[in-house]
Amino acid sequence: MSHHYQSVLESIHAEVLPLQSDGAVANYIPELAKVNANTFGMHLRTIEGLDYSVGSSNELFSIQSISKVFALALVVSIVGEKIFKRVGVEPSGSSFNSLVQLEYEKGIPRNPLINAGAMVVCDALIDQLDKPKKDFLGFVRRLAQNKKIGYNERVAASEKEYGFRNAALANFLKSFGNIRHDVDEVLDLYFHICSVEMSCKDLANAFVLFANHGKFPSTNEVLLTKSQTKRLNAVMQTCGFYDEAGEFSFTVGLPGKSGVGGGIVALHPHRYAVAAWSPRLNAKGNSVMGMKALELLTTKLGSSIF
Amino acid sequence: MSHHYQSVLESIHAEVLPLQSDGAVANYIPELAKVNANTFGMHLRTIEGLDYSVGSSNELFSIQSISKVFALALVVSIVGEKIFKRVGVEPSGSSFNSLVQLEYEKGIPRNPLINAGAMVVCDALIDQLDKPKKDFLGFVRRLAQNKKIGYNERVAASEKEYGFRNAALANFLKSFGNIRHDVDEVLDLYFHICSVEMSCKDLANAFVLFANHGKFPSTNEVLLTKSQTKRLNAVMQTCGFYDEAGEFSFTVGLPGKSGVGGGIVALHPHRYAVAAWSPRLNAKGNSVMGMKALELLTTKLGSSIF
Amino acid sequence: MSHHYQSVLESIHAEVLPLQSDGAVANYIPELAKVNANTFGMHLRTIEGLDYSVGSSNELFSIQSISKVFALALVVSIVGEKIFKRVGVEPSGSSFNSLVQLEYEKGIPRNPLINAGAMVVCDALIDQLDKPKKDFLGFVRRLAQNKKIGYNERVAASEKEYGFRNAALANFLKSFGNIRHDVDEVLDLYFHICSVEMSCKDLANAFVLFANHGKFPSTNEVLLTKSQTKRLNAVMQTCGFYDEAGEFSFTVGLPGKSGVGGGIVALHPHRYAVAAWSPRLNAKGNSVMGMKALELLTTKLGSSIF
Amino acid sequence: MSHHYQSVLESIHAEVLPLQSDGAVANYIPELAKVNANTFGMHLRTIEGLDYSVGSSNELFSIQSISKVFALALVVSIVGEKIFKRVGVEPSGSSFNSLVQLEYEKGIPRNPLINAGAMVVCDALIDQLDKPKKDFLGFVRRLAQNKKIGYNERVAASEKEYGFRNAALANFLKSFGNIRHDVDEVLDLYFHICSVEMSCKDLANAFVLFANHGKFPSTNEVLLTKSQTKRLNAVMQTCGFYDEAGEFSFTVGLPGKSGVGGGIVALHPHRYAVAAWSPRLNAKGNSVMGMKALELLTTKLGSSIF
Repeated sequence: MSHHYQSVLESIHAEVLPLQSDGAVANYIPELAKVNANTFGMHLRTIEGLDYSVGSSNELFSIQSISKVFALALVVSIVGEKIFKRVGVEPSGSSFNSLVQLEYEKGIPRNPLINAGAMVVCDALIDQLDKPKKDFLGFVRRLAQNKKIGYNERVAASEKEYGFRNAALANFLKSFGNIRHDVDEVLDLYFHICSVEMSCKDLANAFVLFANHGKFPSTNEVLLTKSQTKRLNAVMQTCGFYDEAGEFSFTVGLPGKSGVGGGIVALHPHRYAVAAWSPRLNAKGNSVMGMKALELLTTKLGSSIF
Repeated sequence: MSHHYQSVLESIHAEVLPLQSDGAVANYIPELAKVNANTFGMHLRTIEGLDYSVGSSNELFSIQSISKVFALALVVSIVGEKIFKRVGVEPSGSSFNSLVQLEYEKGIPRNPLINAGAMVVCDALIDQLDKPKKDFLGFVRRLAQNKKIGYNERVAASEKEYGFRNAALANFLKSFGNIRHDVDEVLDLYFHICSVEMSCKDLANAFVLFANHGKFPSTNEVLLTKSQTKRLNAVMQTCGFYDEAGEFSFTVGLPGKSGVGGGIVALHPHRYAVAAWSPRLNAKGNSVMGMKALELLTTKLGSSIF
Repeated sequence: MSHHYQSVLESIHAEVLPLQSDGAVANYIPELAKVNANTFGMHLRTIEGLDYSVGSSNELFSIQSISKVFALALVVSIVGEKIFKRVGVEPSGSSFNSLVQLEYEKGIPRNPLINAGAMVVCDALIDQLDKPKKDFLGFVRRLAQNKKIGYNERVAASEKEYGFRNAALANFLKSFGNIRHDVDEVLDLYFHICSVEMSCKDLANAFVLFANHGKFPSTNEVLLTKSQTKRLNAVMQTCGFYDEAGEFSFTVGLPGKSGVGGGIVALHPHRYAVAAWSPRLNAKGNSVMGMKALELLTTKLGSSIF
Repeated sequence: MSHHYQSVLESIHAEVLPLQSDGAVANYIPELAKVNANTFGMHLRTIEGLDYSVGSSNELFSIQSISKVFALALVVSIVGEKIFKRVGVEPSGSSFNSLVQLEYEKGIPRNPLINAGAMVVCDALIDQLDKPKKDFLGFVRRLAQNKKIGYNERVAASEKEYGFRNAALANFLKSFGNIRHDVDEVLDLYFHICSVEMSCKDLANAFVLFANHGKFPSTNEVLLTKSQTKRLNAVMQTCGFYDEAGEFSFTVGLPGKSGVGGGIVALHPHRYAVAAWSPRLNAKGNSVMGMKALELLTTKLGSSIF
């Protein structure tokens, strides 16, 4: 089987290479544009702890919105499902409506994987953590079993410098009372968690816990209950891919999350977690090569959940 | 195993009974309100053709929106995936935004399981079918292997009489050119397909094809390709439960579809299809007992896909 | 003074002529496009009954939305201000939001000069009139003192054939219960009143009543109370020019109403009514030469109300 | 005539007194709630410089949104009408849509008298003024000929402390590039101009310039051109009363502006300016007694422009 996974990744690598000039790198903040656009990497880890990889699977990149899953997992591990009184679990429709939807739903974001929802999660983390930025990073390092993972302060600063729409969202949430702490403090944590840099290997290592009922595979230590893990996976399935959640459900058929840094991570419950990365994005903001790689993976393994 | 399924259904029946007074029967059209509110039925059919049932599993009820899956399956079986040029596959956010979302997206409904999307599907069916109403019914009868299935003309007439919001949607779609036929003709088909009456047994029989790669289990005859079936299942997973798709993904974790008549049908790929029915609805328009029954089913069977 | 008005109109005529190729004729319905695009006419009538005119002031054209003022005046003359329980008196913001605004405000249109508001007025007229289409026409003929005024049935039919957005609005209103009669009946009246053909002279004659406290100038017969007339004039001032009400308030400074047929009519309380017509429209749907002509009129006469 | 105005004000005073318990004081910021709720004052100044007053016409109150007219007048007096490239002159529909409207119109606020528009004006003032807060105050003092007019720093601080929706708007504008300066700097000026305290006498004195073609009545010095003054008056007419602009156009029929502090100021071109104040507001945010007082004024004087 180990041989099988490796050969599947290698054939995927060969098949996605022709796409390496398709799409465009995110440039809404200058720091994100400073990347080797044509890179591709992929890493798969099974719940038994076996690793398979191709391409630049050890190269660090900005995980961006993928970090929202970590923030959600952390807050659920501390306060449980009561966080879902402040943020929903339903998909959000087009981003066009985000502000009016927030108004209509009285400041309760549709789900924790859109920006507004992640800000509420950050606000809740500030409640719970002594040193929110340090403690969040410690949590991610522990999940990925890599103490070198860190924030990219230039990216965080760049997000802040150009993040007026996010500042609008945070102030709007505050006006509804769904942000308790200082808006600047919440945004500072939010911009930092988005700036975390990880490799495909790091991401696959971290997400394998969601494929393993919420337990650390190496130690069987429980971080999340089975029910909590199921909740997180369901949220990823229905809300993880911006305006392409339905498409991803079809083409890949696994719960996962993407980021505008070009990373995508997905998991097959009870089997494995897999991360792919390539910076060029399609029109909906998801990695071109990454999406294709995951589609090929489930096709070749026959492992879509549908 | 047959014994196992049956005992699971029986324990579910016992557990949902205390909920039989919770929720309220849909009354937006008078005909729907004429139902025995406290009824419950459930039927499970495996892809091997084994049947298990409890309660009023043979009683006919108005399948309402569940019919949108049949319409979609029929149009895909005829014209293939090109229907998705006229209707999307993404979840739709709150119903509040439906008209403005349709305007923003220039008349392309978000998915085929919301009213606007089903109307586009009906319009496409009128293109393809000689006698749309008769042919659609023939298709449903063939799927469910029951020639007695029929429309409830009083329900269809009632839908039309009170269906001004649907008429608004259809005209709005027409103004964008995404309805080709006469608005009244499209609405007539739409209101009829919603009025189909089936039992839990009929629905489970019909949906088992989606659990069986698109093939009729009894004959192995192919109606839909594997890819088409995967597409339908993915659409059900992300769009099948009004504003509770995320909640259903979590609590049940299977692709499915509900209707305001109180029916819910779901399927576990490669294993079974299951239908539950009880007329009282929760605030989001899904059957109270039906939702609970399916949640208990996947809990007891350990068969959520997450 | 009579000499003065005539010379002012003549100088205006000379000044607007260079604009006769600017803008584009409305073509959303084919019938409206069949017009001599470069025509211009203007007619001013004082409350004393003196007439002044230039250009094609006797040529008939489709008055379109100007007719909404007649419908409103007629319903107010019959049922009084209680019509304003079913339709507001506030401006409507951009047309983009019309449907969502109607939803937010539970089916009460913002004002009677937008399409949805005029439909509610038509519905109320059907309540009150024996033969709505005939009686409405009789009312307009009486206001304009011209028994030859009529509907253009080809325009009315064309409006209906392409009027799916209006049909969507009417059905949406019906879903809120703010249309009582059959949707098709309301739309038929609505499309007919929009198809009325009048000349600049007819329009000035008809609107002089609004400049004369609601009394017919020739007979002093009272159609509307002073208060009702003030209400109509205020509604025209704030809502009469689509998305250019503010611009018109500034450049012209008189209450008035425009139509996509290229007509504009305005009035100076206690002094005169004036109509201008030229079919080419600016980007906001108002006549290019007509807007300029009225701007020049109030500049030359110093008669803006501001 | 002077006797006439005085007796009219006195009869108005008597007629509005029974309303002194109607409505509720604005309490969205605590500082505003600290006011004697039942107070009423009114002051009218003619362009000839004659003054008439009743009640607490010399008592200071928070002018709030009325200040937006001063900000607009100041920026127009400096940069002219080019400010209208950054902010429109059209009414805005319901406040519900403010954010989505701003998105649809790409960051160009509908008019300078809504919050977003006033922020753009503040941003433009920061461009032009050495010491924006000091210079703005100097301008208001000069208009009102009262050097004692000042900011209420507690109100400004309170606005800031609770102004998250305004902060959301400002950041949203910044994301579209329609705010050039630092968001906090713009908000600081915005919150300060809203905190200005004036009496009815001060307001009438200041607004008489808009009734006098833009010239200071006492010196005939020109601040605004006739055209600029007409523009301001037209903007006040169509946009000055939140969601009650149409109602005010009808009941009062004069250009004006209200504030949530309970102040209302209006002007009759070429005749007078008048201010009324009473803190209790109706459901649309306008002073109950103030609205009634102005309605009675134009009824008694027969001076509506309609």
